Amino acid sequence: MLHFECDYASGAHPQVLERLVRTNLEESSGYGEDAYCGQAARLIQALCRAPQAQVHFLVGGTQANLTVIAAALRPHQGVISAQSGHISDHETGAIEATGHKVLTLAAEGGKLSARQIEALCRDHRADPCAVHKVQPGMIYLAHPTEFGLVYSRAELEAIRAVADQYRLTVFLDGARLACGLAASDVTLPDLARLCDAFTIGGTKAGTLFGEAMVLTRDRLQEDFRYLIKQRGGMLAKGRLLGVQFQALLEDGLYQRIGRQEVDQAMRLQAAFQDKGWPLLYPSPTNQQFPILPDTALEALQRKYSVSWMGKPDAGHTAVRFCTSWSTREEDVDQLIQDITDV
Amino acid sequence: MLHFECDYASGAHPQVLERLVRTNLEESSGYGEDAYCGQAARLIQALCRAPQAQVHFLVGGTQANLTVIAAALRPHQGVISAQSGHISDHETGAIEATGHKVLTLAAEGGKLSARQIEALCRDHRADPCAVHKVQPGMIYLAHPTEFGLVYSRAELEAIRAVADQYRLTVFLDGARLACGLAASDVTLPDLARLCDAFTIGGTKAGTLFGEAMVLTRDRLQEDFRYLIKQRGGMLAKGRLLGVQFQALLEDGLYQRIGRQEVDQAMRLQAAFQDKGWPLLYPSPTNQQFPILPDTALEALQRKYSVSWMGKPDAGHTAVRFCTSWSTREEDVDQLIQDITDV
Amino acid sequence: MLHFECDYASGAHPQVLERLVRTNLEESSGYGEDAYCGQAARLIQALCRAPQAQVHFLVGGTQANLTVIAAALRPHQGVISAQSGHISDHETGAIEATGHKVLTLAAEGGKLSARQIEALCRDHRADPCAVHKVQPGMIYLAHPTEFGLVYSRAELEAIRAVADQYRLTVFLDGARLACGLAASDVTLPDLARLCDAFTIGGTKAGTLFGEAMVLTRDRLQEDFRYLIKQRGGMLAKGRLLGVQFQALLEDGLYQRIGRQEVDQAMRLQAAFQDKGWPLLYPSPTNQQFPILPDTALEALQRKYSVSWMGKPDAGHTAVRFCTSWSTREEDVDQLIQDITDV
Amino acid sequence: MLHFECDYASGAHPQVLERLVRTNLEESSGYGEDAYCGQAARLIQALCRAPQAQVHFLVGGTQANLTVIAAALRPHQGVISAQSGHISDHETGAIEATGHKVLTLAAEGGKLSARQIEALCRDHRADPCAVHKVQPGMIYLAHPTEFGLVYSRAELEAIRAVADQYRLTVFLDGARLACGLAASDVTLPDLARLCDAFTIGGTKAGTLFGEAMVLTRDRLQEDFRYLIKQRGGMLAKGRLLGVQFQALLEDGLYQRIGRQEVDQAMRLQAAFQDKGWPLLYPSPTNQQFPILPDTALEALQRKYSVSWMGKPDAGHTAVRFCTSWSTREEDVDQLIQDITDV
Repeated sequence: MLHFECDYASGAHPQVLERLVRTNLEESSGYGEDAYCGQAARLIQALCRAPQAQVHFLVGGTQANLTVIAAALRPHQGVISAQSGHISDHETGAIEATGHKVLTLAAEGGKLSARQIEALCRDHRADPCAVHKVQPGMIYLAHPTEFGLVYSRAELEAIRAVADQYRLTVFLDGARLACGLAASDVTLPDLARLCDAFTIGGTKAGTLFGEAMVLTRDRLQEDFRYLIKQRGGMLAKGRLLGVQFQALLEDGLYQRIGRQEVDQAMRLQAAFQDKGWPLLYPSPTNQQFPILPDTALEALQRKYSVSWMGKPDAGHTAVRFCTSWSTREEDVDQLIQDITDV
Repeated sequence: MLHFECDYASGAHPQVLERLVRTNLEESSGYGEDAYCGQAARLIQALCRAPQAQVHFLVGGTQANLTVIAAALRPHQGVISAQSGHISDHETGAIEATGHKVLTLAAEGGKLSARQIEALCRDHRADPCAVHKVQPGMIYLAHPTEFGLVYSRAELEAIRAVADQYRLTVFLDGARLACGLAASDVTLPDLARLCDAFTIGGTKAGTLFGEAMVLTRDRLQEDFRYLIKQRGGMLAKGRLLGVQFQALLEDGLYQRIGRQEVDQAMRLQAAFQDKGWPLLYPSPTNQQFPILPDTALEALQRKYSVSWMGKPDAGHTAVRFCTSWSTREEDVDQLIQDITDV
Repeated sequence: MLHFECDYASGAHPQVLERLVRTNLEESSGYGEDAYCGQAARLIQALCRAPQAQVHFLVGGTQANLTVIAAALRPHQGVISAQSGHISDHETGAIEATGHKVLTLAAEGGKLSARQIEALCRDHRADPCAVHKVQPGMIYLAHPTEFGLVYSRAELEAIRAVADQYRLTVFLDGARLACGLAASDVTLPDLARLCDAFTIGGTKAGTLFGEAMVLTRDRLQEDFRYLIKQRGGMLAKGRLLGVQFQALLEDGLYQRIGRQEVDQAMRLQAAFQDKGWPLLYPSPTNQQFPILPDTALEALQRKYSVSWMGKPDAGHTAVRFCTSWSTREEDVDQLIQDITDV
Repeated sequence: MLHFECDYASGAHPQVLERLVRTNLEESSGYGEDAYCGQAARLIQALCRAPQAQVHFLVGGTQANLTVIAAALRPHQGVISAQSGHISDHETGAIEATGHKVLTLAAEGGKLSARQIEALCRDHRADPCAVHKVQPGMIYLAHPTEFGLVYSRAELEAIRAVADQYRLTVFLDGARLACGLAASDVTLPDLARLCDAFTIGGTKAGTLFGEAMVLTRDRLQEDFRYLIKQRGGMLAKGRLLGVQFQALLEDGLYQRIGRQEVDQAMRLQAAFQDKGWPLLYPSPTNQQFPILPDTALEALQRKYSVSWMGKPDAGHTAVRFCTSWSTREEDVDQLIQDITDV
């Protein structure tokens, strides 16, 4: 069976693993106060051209999300998210468990627009019963979204402008940021300039686990380590995160992984289109969502594992194909051949 | 510098690391639903002689604690802990952040007695204002405690009896359980019989990270995976936990590591006592707390790193020496020699 | 100015106030443990034909809602509500502040159907990623809804059946229950039989403040007073609640108030319909939602205050007219005349 | 039976009740946005000589406490309180239910000193593991304390200085402030100058219910009404609070009530001392804590109800006698006579 159902099925990229093995017997301070975390943080500051930014390493994405949201909001505030946003729909109410409502907006493919955010905030301010409603305090974006879509720099700038107007914190979830960077005109310095906080995801780009949280504003930076500890995201052997992110980021491996995942996905997309299979979302990143005849799907599933997304009609099924750092070129070739032949 | 300040300064035990390396490129389901987690869980059920127990793997100790406590308590209930308990004093209010008060009891060396728990519960029930107070709903024990002390089987049985009388959930934090098993008459089957939940700690016994949570009662088992996800303890590449715990547990490595840590610690303890240095706590496990003349400490610190515990008087300091799976015999020999000579 | 904008603009019904004045200097135990609360509770048990029910008195509706929801749910569970439900949209995230997500369903006029609840629960159970989602654990109904609609007995029975199938707690918010009883075939004994918990609202039916919470199931009853205290709903001079509910319930005053509010509202509704003004919702209770020409509204507002509901088109406005226990017949007559003449 | 067991056993002071009755049929806006609340707020601003202060009216004390603490603290912060503080010991974990730890200090009679607060904060800052601990963020004082003790202006100034040094919010719980003002040199303008927030308690000084929350600092003022609503403290018929506080405060009634309660209590204290009965705490306010021979207590309890406080030895009992606005002079005379004769 060849695995295309998700992008976290295997372990670490060999360069990352090698670094973990090489440093395994070293002894260092715990809880992220070691030299590797320091070096990885400085590397990220440099890549973001943001020497004032704080960088923290957390074990996982749900933790990263719930921790930064708890850090940013006052109790009566909520976080704006697409209805399909990970915090809204795939984290078992983790945000509500910190006391905050997720204010959802319908958003095709999970992509929010400055305009709909502005409308929500304007309506809230104009509401004579505003104190009886949750106040919008933060924007949650994913880049790419859960359905693979990306923001352009201009779109993020428009969202930043609304955020400034309504004093909202902007947080961008970069669980698949390697692909987001490869498939949009948005750079790390752009993110540092336009977001109050964003993550650089490791899990789906070659680490065993880990998200780097970049905090660009004073207000969020203050005492952030207390919050990481409180919410369970502080690893005792914290250097494991620094070691992995250093290996991932120091010579462009992260960018290469993103580029490769996207290239492979675009080849798949072309095959789907050549075949006449429509796409659920026009994703330019490593997740592809073709709608297949059920007979074709059945045939392919004998050899390839995919994720089920829904049934638009009786004879067709929407599925997800993912590429990852560990996807081999020859497997993509084979898959394309089989799509053509099916 | 030789490191004796903590037991999580290095990476994974070579046998554990080897297994991670060997399985690195395999592909498996995420979130703990893979074959390795299944095998590790069955191994633990067998070691505990508790086929009905559920076993879950969480990334870290604070997460494990806050998740099981949130799972067990109703909103008006609190968890009884020693004042020095990890949940009370070293987790940045993680338990309060889930909404629950930690009901602290003064306890020498962090060890609670059935008698003081019983007194607290009896007083609560007798209080005419009980509904204005937090209701005790759970007992948090650490074995060994934060100061290295262990419970005997008889002590745990007495605590279980009180718990049954007052309908309290018993949770035992086994962050250093390898040492607890080596230094007491308490076995894994005892824990499965006497606790509603307990952890088998990996981080301090040879894994990169990870705690195995063993749930022996129906009530806690129901929907526990929802709670792991909600609180951020569910690893995407969940098999990493299964792989490590399997390596650690399948041929007695865990027990050997505990035995070795305790043996080394006992040799250090003997050296302190030969030297006439009193012990802050009579720990039979891998953490030792001697009180040294400041001059001796100064000399030793040129070569050995330790943790500072307090200053009982002007000329003396209490410190912590830890042994770990990575402590070398020759380093212990050297340290003992230096203690003798100082 | 004649007030029709809400049903809580004046103080207490004269019979209720008289009882407060008469008992003012008496001395009694605090926190609801007095004779008046006991008598009022027994009165409610009798009216509900539910001797096993517990009755508690809380100061306000938001408190009542957040307290019973916190009591019923485990941390990973959410409460199903209409999108327009009070807990979803008008309590500033009070439910999320207790840690729970409100699972909203689109519902015309705020009325949920058994069928849509069943679909949500079935989908959740069938979802292979269910543990990554909030588990439905409770149903929140309002009777009447925020838009004045009522449930029939048959509808509540169908909802109860779904709740039993999926182990959901059923909570009915009776903030305006006096009207709900007057305008549907649902009786207090029906509510006691079909709900796990419901409130009998005082504020909008003649008390200064206060909601009676009726708990019909063991599981919710246990330790409920701890939760009232914890969430701030326990009044020091608790007898004020007992005194008021006794005055309201002991000789049918509550039912008479509901009947009168509904009768007056039906007269208004007939006037709107005679005038050819459509209704936003076909409310059979004390809240009426006509859509008026703006010119007519402007004229009426010189004399009558109403609540603004929205603008369906450029020339029309939807508003709310409420009747209450203090609405005078002559004012309704005058309003109808003015509607006719405008 | 004559009631001396608490100070909330009867209803409202006749002047307060008269005002409620007189305004009962008036119609006004809900939720505290009426003219009476406005007038009462301006009255309090004037009495405090603090035109910039915000004044809000909440239903009860637990609500007031939990709301202001939730408003002031970030998630990793806790509130410093005496071990016997109401928030620590008598609110069923209401503060923990908002996510915050109560950092308790042993304090004789519930009175904190600037020195012990300073020591706690200094230790926290000096702790190399500070991020693993709850950060002190707020001070909770009660004036008088739960045991009747008061702060002097100089003591509050010293506490303010520590608060400024460590950036702590100062909140003073004035549940019995009428007595605190009568029995200390602290004035309302002092409180407005030295506290970030404080309450003026109504329930124990002649209202049916209600606490006025005075917020003197910008940071706490922002969006405070959202928090009142979220936590359930916003009364629909909010004017009831304004009406009562206006009646209480506009012509010095509040001060007279405090003066009378204290005078009566001092007469009782003198009687206890004449009798040779020691006092548990040297309270200068309306709560008195004599230690009586059990035989004397038994005799007095035939006629007087008191609160039980503890048994210092086999033959003696400590009890609480409270005076209140409704305590009659002739009953105090009679009690003193009976004390003398017993």
